[in-house]
Amino acid sequence: MLLLYDITDDRIRHKVSEACKDYGLKREQYSAFSGQLNTNKREELFMRVKKLLGRHGGSIHLYNICEKDFRLRQTYKVEEPKEDD
Amino acid sequence: MLLLYDITDDRIRHKVSEACKDYGLKREQYSAFSGQLNTNKREELFMRVKKLLGRHGGSIHLYNICEKDFRLRQTYKVEEPKEDD
Repeated sequence: MLLLYDITDDRIRHKVSEACKDYGLKREQYSAFSGQLNTNKREELFMRVKKLLGRHGGSIHLYNICEKDFRLRQTYKVEEPKEDD
Repeated sequence: MLLLYDITDDRIRHKVSEACKDYGLKREQYSAFSGQLNTNKREELFMRVKKLLGRHGGSIHLYNICEKDFRLRQTYKVEEPKEDD
């Protein structure tokens, strides 16, 4: 599964990322976590992050991704260039 | 499929979002686009966005998501509260 969020409030966004870590998810990007959770745990986490977001502005998306598709994911990553100036 | 990116350079990030739109993808979040592309188009797009990112810092993730899983995605969205002050 993949959990993505757009949350403007720093404090809430941090809490959502902590919840994802509590469920053993791995950070894929700044606001994207992935992992394998069973249906119960997935629902539990989604309930929790929805509650955290509450009435603050933002959105949370949860995608189930089967193991085959997950293995086939493609990544391109470039380290931030270090600037001396 | 789902294409996510973390790109710090505004200009590059904008170009990547434009490329996603060119391929008919739909914006799901600020830095996440989704859509159904065949394997060729998907590879073509991934090549294009990799080239756009080039040696700038950032990351791009592409997940294939089968139609069944895509239909079962869950979303929670709250409009930004409008503040008068």
